[in-house]
Amino acid sequence: MKHLKDYSCTLCGKAYAAPVDFYTCPSCGEKGILDVNHDLSALRGELTRASFARSDEQSLWRYAPLLPVKPTHMQDTLRVGWTPLYASKRLKDRLGMKELHIKDEGVNPTGSLKDRASVVAVLKAIEAGNTTIACSSTGNAASSLAGNAARLGLQAVIFVPARAPKGKLSQLVAFGARVIRVEGDYKAAYNASKAAIDHFGWYNRNAAINPHMVEGKKTVAFEIAEQLDFRLPDWVVVSVGDGCTIAGLHKGFQELAEVGLTTSVPRLLGVQSVGCAPFYEAARTGRDLEETDEDTIADSIAVGIPRNPVKGLRAVRATRGAWVTVTDEAIIRSVRTMGETEGVFGEPAAAASLAGLEKALQENIIAKDEHVVVVSTGNGLKDTSSMQESLGRLKSFKGDLEEIIEYFENDRQTGGKQ
Amino acid sequence: MKHLKDYSCTLCGKAYAAPVDFYTCPSCGEKGILDVNHDLSALRGELTRASFARSDEQSLWRYAPLLPVKPTHMQDTLRVGWTPLYASKRLKDRLGMKELHIKDEGVNPTGSLKDRASVVAVLKAIEAGNTTIACSSTGNAASSLAGNAARLGLQAVIFVPARAPKGKLSQLVAFGARVIRVEGDYKAAYNASKAAIDHFGWYNRNAAINPHMVEGKKTVAFEIAEQLDFRLPDWVVVSVGDGCTIAGLHKGFQELAEVGLTTSVPRLLGVQSVGCAPFYEAARTGRDLEETDEDTIADSIAVGIPRNPVKGLRAVRATRGAWVTVTDEAIIRSVRTMGETEGVFGEPAAAASLAGLEKALQENIIAKDEHVVVVSTGNGLKDTSSMQESLGRLKSFKGDLEEIIEYFENDRQTGGKQ
Repeated sequence: MKHLKDYSCTLCGKAYAAPVDFYTCPSCGEKGILDVNHDLSALRGELTRASFARSDEQSLWRYAPLLPVKPTHMQDTLRVGWTPLYASKRLKDRLGMKELHIKDEGVNPTGSLKDRASVVAVLKAIEAGNTTIACSSTGNAASSLAGNAARLGLQAVIFVPARAPKGKLSQLVAFGARVIRVEGDYKAAYNASKAAIDHFGWYNRNAAINPHMVEGKKTVAFEIAEQLDFRLPDWVVVSVGDGCTIAGLHKGFQELAEVGLTTSVPRLLGVQSVGCAPFYEAARTGRDLEETDEDTIADSIAVGIPRNPVKGLRAVRATRGAWVTVTDEAIIRSVRTMGETEGVFGEPAAAASLAGLEKALQENIIAKDEHVVVVSTGNGLKDTSSMQESLGRLKSFKGDLEEIIEYFENDRQTGGKQ
Repeated sequence: MKHLKDYSCTLCGKAYAAPVDFYTCPSCGEKGILDVNHDLSALRGELTRASFARSDEQSLWRYAPLLPVKPTHMQDTLRVGWTPLYASKRLKDRLGMKELHIKDEGVNPTGSLKDRASVVAVLKAIEAGNTTIACSSTGNAASSLAGNAARLGLQAVIFVPARAPKGKLSQLVAFGARVIRVEGDYKAAYNASKAAIDHFGWYNRNAAINPHMVEGKKTVAFEIAEQLDFRLPDWVVVSVGDGCTIAGLHKGFQELAEVGLTTSVPRLLGVQSVGCAPFYEAARTGRDLEETDEDTIADSIAVGIPRNPVKGLRAVRATRGAWVTVTDEAIIRSVRTMGETEGVFGEPAAAASLAGLEKALQENIIAKDEHVVVVSTGNGLKDTSSMQESLGRLKSFKGDLEEIIEYFENDRQTGGKQ
């Protein structure tokens, strides 16, 4: 916190000294998303590989000096971050790669990477004197906000569209959030949230609008670097919805280099679904982001109007990265591939990262001898629909031994695909 | 591993020098569950508070010297254990207690405490030269086995009854387990598994039968102690199904005392459901465990024929603990209480632990000034059915501000119960 310098607009570039009492650039309005800037030169020499090695903090608060949050309540939060980075063996071999790691974000307290943003949001809300914090979302942003708010004793208010699936609402209700189910689509829920947040003065955790969300998310990059002993991979692969996560990865790696902990920045592969690919299209055509359909099983990245276009596009461009799209079939296949080779069960949006890697290998965007980290963004238990078809193919047994022996005989012959 | 001494039968007491090539006592048969005995006196002085403080291992392998597993593959497993122990603030106040902690086992890699047993099982399978490992279960034992086996490249075979819910099967399929769905009930699935395991010589991870499962589970006790700086609580509260988890807690605390790291053992409160309470009944009547119905929403503790009666009953008796039963209504209430006060979303069996604490406070079994640790055994995402009724009560909004303002006005008046 003490190294927080200023906020600058991603559109007009104007800088505002910290602290600020607005979310977006007063000149540019809601599209003037802000960057948070730290005095990184002051941290050179203070933050070293040795200082990290000495730390016994096992959460994202390990990186407190690089975060725009006062330490007062850090010890009271859920334990977010410091998730495992698994060295892949079987998946790496199957893909014919030299080195591959999986970052499992599904073991965060509410089951996704979004906890990193939400835990920062609740502390910023407390700093701002708020007791209520709101957002519009049906997915991981909502559940992570609800859980992290509950832990700190804040009231969460979540605006959801009418179609929000019951499974996703369960987590919100369990965390005691006030759920405002708005008749209409996501845009209707968003507009209702905006009006209510303005009226009541609640803290606003709407993605992208709030510049601190990227700050929480950048800690994934810090962890990847540290868990690899600061030997950076060539590529980091992540699925992209509103653009905040890939922006966070970019900012994190950038800051590590500026602090002097690393000397380069990995290339970022942004993965979108064929049925919802506004970033991919904008990068391909060189035009502005255009609203698209949201037709994909991976609902955590089904974002037709991404709220963070500037930061998302910049992350890939600045790292000489690339964009790919993947089909729902490839996503479903990847859920199982990651599960059966690595024991990591990801939700569809998480497996989309892996599907994106496979696509990039096919298209020679990534070479097989490059070192890659795949970010599995959320827990498979959040959405088990990807397994429905496989379940339909499950065989029934009477239970006698002969039948089971016969099954395994056939199984061996057919390669064991159930 | 090097301090593994022998195995002794919980029924006849006979000891067998390690290693053994059987699961249960050759004299007593399948009911002769074994205890694993370590040469704890050899560890006095070697395992100290300081040696733990120096360790940077962030998984249950922190306790490798106290586990019957060779270290060869420990670095290859999923990251199991070293889950957060949260100091409760709001829940403690709501219950009028002095000190309360929540151990959140739901952030284990496959979402439950059972990962601790399964990760030990897969390493023992590898030691025994097996490439396939099997069990019969519909629940957390199965999914944790499937995930941990996948990570180590073992084939898991899971026997499930016909009624096994699709949600639970999804995780198994995603991890690439062979699912043998047996027409009939759990007993039919168990018998089929036994026949197939005998025939094929697969490694057997059936709960209780395999004495190493309790060894994995005892690490929860080690962590609770260490995370409290070895200042033990007065009580540890946990829901009970087959009896292995509470047996593990008992064994863990007992061993810490024998190694000289602590000087006492906390009392254990075993919590069962009113609709399935064989342990409670056996303790109450002083008679042997009798088979009961399995009528509860908390399916992870819906075990009508517990396979580990001796160890389970002994754990409570030896620690001067107690047994309580809780209703499904209390369990559902507790899911939400834990969620909204602490931000921890537990499955029904996990929330049953909290419901049991509330019951024990009412019945003056536990005093409000005693220090209690509640073990939340599994992730709420595993089973969201407990929130169905609350979801039915969710209000719909047209989305205009007046309506939302009015709602929050009423909300304030009614105390905010949605």
